[in-house]
Order: sequence, then structure tokens, then C-alpha cells
Amino acid sequence: MQIANRMQGISGSAIRELFKLLGDPAIISFGGGNPSKACFPSETIRTITDELLREKSDILLQYGATEGYMPLRRAYLDHILPDNGLHGELENVLALTGSMQGLDLICKAVINPGDVVLVEEPSFLGALQTFRVAQAKLVTVPMHTDGVHADELEEIVKKHRPVVFYTIPTFQNPAGYVTGAKTRKKIAELAAEYDMLVIEDDPYAALRFCGEKEPTIKSFDTSDNVIVLTSFSKTISPGLRVALCFGNKDLIRKMTIAKQGSDTHSPNLNQAIVAEFINRGHMPAHIEYISGVYARSAGVMTDAMAEHFPEWVHYEKPVGGLFIWCTLPEGWDAQELFKRAVERKVAFVPGAPFHTTEGAGLNTFRLNFSAEPEERIREGIKRLGDLLKEMAEEK
Amino acid sequence: MQIANRMQGISGSAIRELFKLLGDPAIISFGGGNPSKACFPSETIRTITDELLREKSDILLQYGATEGYMPLRRAYLDHILPDNGLHGELENVLALTGSMQGLDLICKAVINPGDVVLVEEPSFLGALQTFRVAQAKLVTVPMHTDGVHADELEEIVKKHRPVVFYTIPTFQNPAGYVTGAKTRKKIAELAAEYDMLVIEDDPYAALRFCGEKEPTIKSFDTSDNVIVLTSFSKTISPGLRVALCFGNKDLIRKMTIAKQGSDTHSPNLNQAIVAEFINRGHMPAHIEYISGVYARSAGVMTDAMAEHFPEWVHYEKPVGGLFIWCTLPEGWDAQELFKRAVERKVAFVPGAPFHTTEGAGLNTFRLNFSAEPEERIREGIKRLGDLLKEMAEEK
Repeated sequence: MQIANRMQGISGSAIRELFKLLGDPAIISFGGGNPSKACFPSETIRTITDELLREKSDILLQYGATEGYMPLRRAYLDHILPDNGLHGELENVLALTGSMQGLDLICKAVINPGDVVLVEEPSFLGALQTFRVAQAKLVTVPMHTDGVHADELEEIVKKHRPVVFYTIPTFQNPAGYVTGAKTRKKIAELAAEYDMLVIEDDPYAALRFCGEKEPTIKSFDTSDNVIVLTSFSKTISPGLRVALCFGNKDLIRKMTIAKQGSDTHSPNLNQAIVAEFINRGHMPAHIEYISGVYARSAGVMTDAMAEHFPEWVHYEKPVGGLFIWCTLPEGWDAQELFKRAVERKVAFVPGAPFHTTEGAGLNTFRLNFSAEPEERIREGIKRLGDLLKEMAEEK
Repeated sequence: MQIANRMQGISGSAIRELFKLLGDPAIISFGGGNPSKACFPSETIRTITDELLREKSDILLQYGATEGYMPLRRAYLDHILPDNGLHGELENVLALTGSMQGLDLICKAVINPGDVVLVEEPSFLGALQTFRVAQAKLVTVPMHTDGVHADELEEIVKKHRPVVFYTIPTFQNPAGYVTGAKTRKKIAELAAEYDMLVIEDDPYAALRFCGEKEPTIKSFDTSDNVIVLTSFSKTISPGLRVALCFGNKDLIRKMTIAKQGSDTHSPNLNQAIVAEFINRGHMPAHIEYISGVYARSAGVMTDAMAEHFPEWVHYEKPVGGLFIWCTLPEGWDAQELFKRAVERKVAFVPGAPFHTTEGAGLNTFRLNFSAEPEERIREGIKRLGDLLKEMAEEK
């Protein structure tokens, strides 16, 4: 049987594969990006779902519009976007079966094989895979602890003329870093100057532990060249697969046509649950609650790291999101660390797959602090710290 | 902003666009392929959903496996496939966000731009669009009242060497016709002889009004070149977007990787609802009930057609599925009929978009009998019959 060229050399997401390994409950997992199950608003969802199925099953169980369930699109326009300084119309909005689908549909609508897509290095594994399956040519801009740097970005854009720049500006995956307001404005300006589509993927922004939130790149967008992906996977539930995007009407229209041939429409019930959750006003208190939970978990993890990790492991204290990015001295191989950590029933994600440049990031790894309870975070970090010290002695 | 080559000239599904027009409740719609809302097992779904969210919300609201929710994959292997003479293993099965996603993932896994995909003429609009977005070269085999003909098929396969043959063998959309057992066996043989992937899309097979069910093409498959798409949209609910596919393990693996970058995984709750519906034994009685409802609706429609349609409108009495395919004399334009029918508040789907050959099927149209109550079916058919007679007199 023929295999398409686009799938040659694509081996599947290292994280998705890791998920399977994590079936062993004895393993303390800092891999994945799973929200804490304690943060799911389960009772509220159950109440809402029961009411929806009592009152609207005729509509919810029937085929729906490709554009999305109207009350969800309205809730997004009326509540979520204005909270981020954004305003638009229904034609700017498309519902998605998870925000990953947004990337797939953008690729279908915009990318020809061989086109240049600019990504941060490191960046979200799933996005990299989607761009590779779309046969894009990946070019990178380095991530720093204060996000991408405007001067580096401009130089790369000038040189490579990317069709798309994919960025996670807030609490980036995997690095956790935040790109500042001045650079965000510059990104919007570059989008206009070079007719470059900017994908602003922002699933973690609501999970802020301290400080003021940054303005969105989209809020600086004068050329309508920025599309925002809004996920509810980290704030309400990933299992529901509900996300939305907000952008240029022509692009949204092309993405809608691509979606007709991708999954016809997103499931109605799931969209209705999220719409009701927003419309009943649950979001602010829920976000405050889960941000507090994750801030505490992050604190537990960094306290344990301060106690158990050798001082030559570099990382920043997170101010939001779900991840801590660690850098080992040059010459270390996080893949080797991973193999030995799993033997001690601790898992994380080695950093190399988040990189595009051949051989980059071998000495990096990502820790997630949202999926495990506090005592297991402490224990897991202790085991990792002990292992790091042992491996250093062996060197 | 750049638009990808694959989207040039793709204008969106005529049926999806029609859906919007059907917001006017005064319009009697024989367009679309909506199941009757009276056929949704709403109360059972509500009970199941409430129990699932009480007992399993930790799992169902969390990220899930790309391969699908395990109890659904098992229910498919243990109950649905054996009922169709099929047996396999977990690695043969992938859960889908609606069976349309199966087509998209097959295209991603198998089709290079310019590859030949063989489709029935007429065929399902959504599938044609997915193949066009994949930049396949479409070649057609004619549908007859007894389905595709083996001799015609073999000749076309020999000549064009398609990478994929897409077929809806039972109660085809839009024609409603059934391809017989002998031809099904021949299709499986051609798949082996020419290393051609056969997509057996079978969403309507359960909706049989009389007679014995045909064996699946897959049941004759000796070369593992047939993949089956199984949808629950027509039997349980389209709004839940739950489907599965069953095929070659290598292909399923490639599709799984493609799915990682398409929507990560299908929503867990929706898969769990369908799994419970199957595992609690609801399917047989529910299928019997809805088949009876649709048989009655089909009878009401064909009785009304016999009374009101001119004798020169050709159609077959359906023995299952959701559609009646109508052919007008040469020279008629069903698009013109459609425009004037909508003025009289009756809608259907003109047949041309189901055709791939330029200019083919202008004198054809599709009637759906599952979405309207009986009195509106009678009234709508009367209006259509009156209009047909008037238009004939004007000619």
C-alpha cells in the first residue's frame, strides 16, 4: 500500500507515545501537559450537560453548522475576546475540535508544500508535527527567557520571508517564557510589513500566578494578519475538545471550507457545555481557583528543585502556565536521563523533539507541574535530583 | 494573504451551504441527510451521560488516546464488526471525529497530489470535496440501479490504476442503490490484484427496510486492502460526531499519526456515550425501531410521488437508507427546479454537485425522506409534483 510523501519520516508525537507508557500508575509523571483532575469543574459540567440534554437534545444530537454552535461563537465574541481587548463579528470566528485542528485547517488553507513556516525554538511538538505533515519548510527563531527578540525575529523574517509565524507568546510550551508587550507590537508590525500570517496560540495565558497580563499580539494587529487560537483544554477540560479561533474573515471562510472536509462540524454537545459554562459566569472564579492550584504546585516543584537539583541545572521560576524548562550543562543527554528516570518511576519530556534544528536541545527537558499531587511532585523531584547527581559523578 | 493551491476553486459544500438556508422553518426540506429527531435515543443518552459524568469524569474530561477511547474500540471489535462478519484486533481500529475524518486521514496517509482516486458517479459530496482538497485526480465509475458493475470497474481500474477506490456499497449517497454481493467480492479481488486501497463507507447499511443484508466488501478482503468506515451519525446521533474505522494495521498507524496533528484525539465523553449505548445492548432494538420509522417515511414519500409526480420522473423505491434519487428527462435543469421549489418553500439537493464529470447529472436530484414528518412529506411532494407539471407545460 502506498504511503503519502508527507508521512515519510514522520514518526508520531513523542508525547503522545509517552502517554501510553504512563498507564503505569506507579510512574510519577512530569511529562504530558495534562491539567490536574482536581481542576475539572466536573459537577458544574454534569449539571449543565443534564439540563442541555433535557432541553435541547433535538438540536444538540442533530447535525450542526461547520462554523460552530452559535451560542458558543457568541459567548466567545461577547465575553472571552473582550477580556483580551479584542472585538469582532461572527464571520471572524470558527469553532474547532481542539485548537490543534486550527493549525491543521490553517495549513490546509494557506500552506503549499515547501513554504516557509517560522517557529520558536523550542516550540510545541504537536504544532511542529502538523507543519511537517503539511510539508512546510521550518525555520526557527530562538526563545529567550523574555521570549523571542524583536531584532532576531526581524532579521529572520527579512531573510526567509515566512508565510506563517507560529508563536505561543504567553507561558510558552515547552519553555514557559513570556514574550513582552513591545515585542508583541513588533510582531504585529512585521505581519503587516511582510504580509505574514501570525498564529497566536494562547492556551496558557489564563493560568497566570502573578503580575499583569500582557496585551495580545492580535490587539496590535492593524493588517488583519494575526489569527488567535483559544483553547479550553487547560481551563475547562481537554477531553471535551473545544476551541475557537478568531481572525481574518477570508481566512476563516477558507478554514471553514477545509473543516467541512475534515470533520464536518465539531460536536454540538461539547460546544454547548462550554458556552453554558461561560454564559453562566463560571469562568472568572474557576480561572482564579485553578491558577491558585497551579501556582501552589509550581511553588512546590521549584522549592523541591532548589533543595534537590544540583545548582548547574538552569531553570526559571514560572509565573504561569504548566511547565518548567530545564537546561543541563553542554554535553548532557536528556534522553539518557529520561531512560534512567523511568527506571526510577519518574517521567518528563526530553527537550530535543521540541527543537527543529538538528542536534539542538539535547541537554534540555520539560517538567510539567499540573498533573501530580504535591507529595508526588516532591518525591519525583527528589528522585530526579538524586539521579542527576549520580550521573554527574559517573561523568 | 496567501491561499494554498489546494483551496483554489473549492467553493464549499453545496449541502452545508443549503443547511443555512434551511433556517426558515416554513421550508419543507428534502435536502440534507439529517436523521429524524424522533429517532434520537435522547432519554437513553441523557441517562448514560449522567452516569458517565458521575463515575468517570476524571478520565472523560482529561486528555485521551489518539487511537480512541478503549471501551469504544472494544465494543466495536466485540459487537459491531462481528455483526458484519468481521474480526480484528485493537491495532486495526481507530476512533474518528465523524467518518468524514476517516477520509481526511486516509488522504493524509496515502494520497499524493495528482494521484488517481476512483469514485462512484454520483457520489457523496463531502467525500468528493475531501479528495479535491487532497488534490487527487478524480476518475469515475457509473452507478446503476444495482450499484457499480464489475466489468466497468475492472476496465477503469486497469486503465487508470487508482490508488484509492471510494465506494458506498449499501443504500448509496446520493443514489440509494445497493452494490450486490458478487460485485463486492470482485471489488476485493481488484483491490488485491492492483494493490488498490478500497474505502468501504457504510453509514446507511443498518437502515434496511426489507430483504437480507449484503456481505461487506471487507469480508471478501484477502489482501488487507479494504478499510471500513463505520459511522454512528445515522443510527445514534450525528451531533456527537462518533465514528470508527477498521483496516490494515500499517494504514491505521499512519492515520493515527495524522490524527495527532489533526485534532489530537476525539472527545472522550462522546465516545463513551456510544460505547455504553452499544455495551448496554441498546443497538438492536433501536436499529429496528428507526428502520421502521424510515421505512414508513419512505413509503409515504413514494406513495405521494406516485400520486403527484409526472410519470416521466424516474426513481427506484428505496429498500433502505435515507434517499431517493430522481432523474428528469434530458434537457431538464434541476438547479432551475430547485430555485422555483424554494419559492414554494420546498427544498432538495440538485444532483450536479454529486457528479465529477463536467456537465453530468444536471437533470438529477436527491430527495431525503428522514427529516420531515409525514404530512409535510405529502405536502412537499405535492408542491414539487405541481411545479414539475407546470414547468413541463412551459417547455
